[in-house]
Amino acid sequence: MNQHQLMKKLSIKTDSKIVFLVMDGLGDIPHPKYDYMTPLEKSNHPNLDKIAEDGVCGFTIPILPGITPGSGPAHLSLFGYDPLQIEIGRGLLDTLGIDFDFSSLDMASRGNFATADSNGVIIDRRAGRISTDECIRLCEMLSKIKINGVEIFVKPVKEHRFSVIFRGQNLNDKLTDSDPQKEGLKPLKVQALDSASKSTADMVNLFFEKAEEVLKSEKKANMVLLRGFSKMIDIEKYQDLYKLNPLAIATYPMYRGLAKLVGMEVAKTGDTIESEFKTLEENFKNYDYFFMHIKKTDSYGEDGNFESKAKVIEEVDKCIPILMKLNPDVIVVTGDHSTPALMSGHSWHPVPTIIYSKICRKDLVKKFNETECLRGGLGNMSAQYLMPLGMANAGKLIKFGA
Amino acid sequence: MNQHQLMKKLSIKTDSKIVFLVMDGLGDIPHPKYDYMTPLEKSNHPNLDKIAEDGVCGFTIPILPGITPGSGPAHLSLFGYDPLQIEIGRGLLDTLGIDFDFSSLDMASRGNFATADSNGVIIDRRAGRISTDECIRLCEMLSKIKINGVEIFVKPVKEHRFSVIFRGQNLNDKLTDSDPQKEGLKPLKVQALDSASKSTADMVNLFFEKAEEVLKSEKKANMVLLRGFSKMIDIEKYQDLYKLNPLAIATYPMYRGLAKLVGMEVAKTGDTIESEFKTLEENFKNYDYFFMHIKKTDSYGEDGNFESKAKVIEEVDKCIPILMKLNPDVIVVTGDHSTPALMSGHSWHPVPTIIYSKICRKDLVKKFNETECLRGGLGNMSAQYLMPLGMANAGKLIKFGA
Repeated sequence: MNQHQLMKKLSIKTDSKIVFLVMDGLGDIPHPKYDYMTPLEKSNHPNLDKIAEDGVCGFTIPILPGITPGSGPAHLSLFGYDPLQIEIGRGLLDTLGIDFDFSSLDMASRGNFATADSNGVIIDRRAGRISTDECIRLCEMLSKIKINGVEIFVKPVKEHRFSVIFRGQNLNDKLTDSDPQKEGLKPLKVQALDSASKSTADMVNLFFEKAEEVLKSEKKANMVLLRGFSKMIDIEKYQDLYKLNPLAIATYPMYRGLAKLVGMEVAKTGDTIESEFKTLEENFKNYDYFFMHIKKTDSYGEDGNFESKAKVIEEVDKCIPILMKLNPDVIVVTGDHSTPALMSGHSWHPVPTIIYSKICRKDLVKKFNETECLRGGLGNMSAQYLMPLGMANAGKLIKFGA
Repeated sequence: MNQHQLMKKLSIKTDSKIVFLVMDGLGDIPHPKYDYMTPLEKSNHPNLDKIAEDGVCGFTIPILPGITPGSGPAHLSLFGYDPLQIEIGRGLLDTLGIDFDFSSLDMASRGNFATADSNGVIIDRRAGRISTDECIRLCEMLSKIKINGVEIFVKPVKEHRFSVIFRGQNLNDKLTDSDPQKEGLKPLKVQALDSASKSTADMVNLFFEKAEEVLKSEKKANMVLLRGFSKMIDIEKYQDLYKLNPLAIATYPMYRGLAKLVGMEVAKTGDTIESEFKTLEENFKNYDYFFMHIKKTDSYGEDGNFESKAKVIEEVDKCIPILMKLNPDVIVVTGDHSTPALMSGHSWHPVPTIIYSKICRKDLVKKFNETECLRGGLGNMSAQYLMPLGMANAGKLIKFGA
């Protein structure tokens, strides 16, 4: 029996409530410009420290030691799924964030509007970053394309970016991209990488021909480029796996999409961290699991902006009293991976983590940071264990065996 | 996807350089005669301590908790392969160290020259430990044996020890030994343990008959004993798996053989620890991965010689400045397993380990020993993760998923 099967067998419905507070890219490494401290070490966060003091701390490893994850696999792991078994294609991941009801027949891809010259050579892969309004108008035009045996949905994302979802029987996603990823080249014909994907490749290439015709009189966006063709994955939902009624609170589309993928409802929320906590407060009585996603720790990490990353942590800390007042049975504070400011990118470094409940076995950790977590009771463990531990601390798992 | 497939998918070629410094049998347990300290604790090694201080430390578990490994599986694990999936037979392991170009058709075995009386009863399993020169002469004689459908290579090892490699189609190695491991007995007929190995057993028994004929006028070495029949294993090489160009520096044949098995080139080097470091220096610019193997920590551990084991560690420490001057991007200091002097043998105890790079997340460990490593950032982890972590710290792994 694997972890997934164990969860399905042992999980029960109870009234207790679990909050996962995920600060994206939270983990960091010592920075020479900041006294060899990390943003968690350099910032002031008395409320998070109190949760750490009352909880059990340590580190989570998103995938395996040494493996730097993208957001997709990292979140699957946080949600208790095995990211080495379930692969979310790029097109699907990007498309998850748009307001769209996916079916199991869908194949998604990410699209760019581009500018081509009179010979069909790409001269601007982003079509001069057209406005989102322009993108909406163009997507409506492309939505009218008809191809036998397949439904086509063209959905704006932002500026020159959009998604195409093809819905039909027997679609297969082993396809090359049409986007050559370089200017000065013509777009590529999509090719099938296996025989089962051959007819899908033909269908997608037909879509390009029709799109070219539709866009031919556009000045900037006279071409589309598609990449990351990926079919909907078949994944067991939180409701069935954990018997949970989950709510996601996230400001960024991709994370809302990841949450939907595992069966979470997605709350309407504002753009600020405080509004996310307010949304938690408003919805607290109606759900029993909450995934709260804070994006900007990662964004500033990616920018190499140590100080702003530290400030986001302080901003989260100021909102913690809203969370504590709700008195959830279990609080998990973690990140999906590390994004060290010094590296300006995701990394493999284990992520500082707290599990708090009245029955967790608290350790000697008094503050929430990378150095203190070294003496935590969780040690270095797979992020996939956070859901079982969260469920256990919430009294939602029965005994295994007699 | 498993770790092996992940490494193959994510590894990229870069200019960065990784050094694995492996002190065989390094780990130890407190010794009552030496203030309940270990050789690492009792010895003076300021240079290793400095690497520990600047790196991230902890313990590696060679196979699984409680499992005492031989050198073969322990090294497979260090090299990032799963030793529970890949089994290296004893004959192959012993034969790996001789200067021989193995093919996938080969089946190896380890041989002893022995002395039999006129009834064919073994009276000396080691033929009076004949000289290596004698061994060479006898091996040349045996090399002339011809058997239909198989090529036979008889290669001297040392004193009474040699290797036989049978090369042919459809050889199978599920065979019993001919060596009864005791004097006063006749050698055993080799028997097939499965039906596929039946014809190979007949062939090997024919080889014995012919060897008896060849050696009949020898005074001491008038018989051969063979054991550990094992076929060449099929293992993906460092070049394909990690895109590395690896060099092995080792004084003992078996470790050179293990390194060859995973695709490493083997450097010519001297017998001393200093000569191994000099060899590293001379070859540093031409490779991007270096496996340095120090044997004597293990040898003295096996002898129960605590003080000499401690001295070997000090001797390694004196050479560390040669390594540091080369400024490798990643240094891993570890052992393949523990060989506690108090136990005079290999053990299962986790092995003190350092991973050093500019982007490792250093911990509070200031000295390199078993007690200090307890508070290291690596915790207790599988030795199989050293290669992924080494690769990650060297910037040789791309992100997994989007």
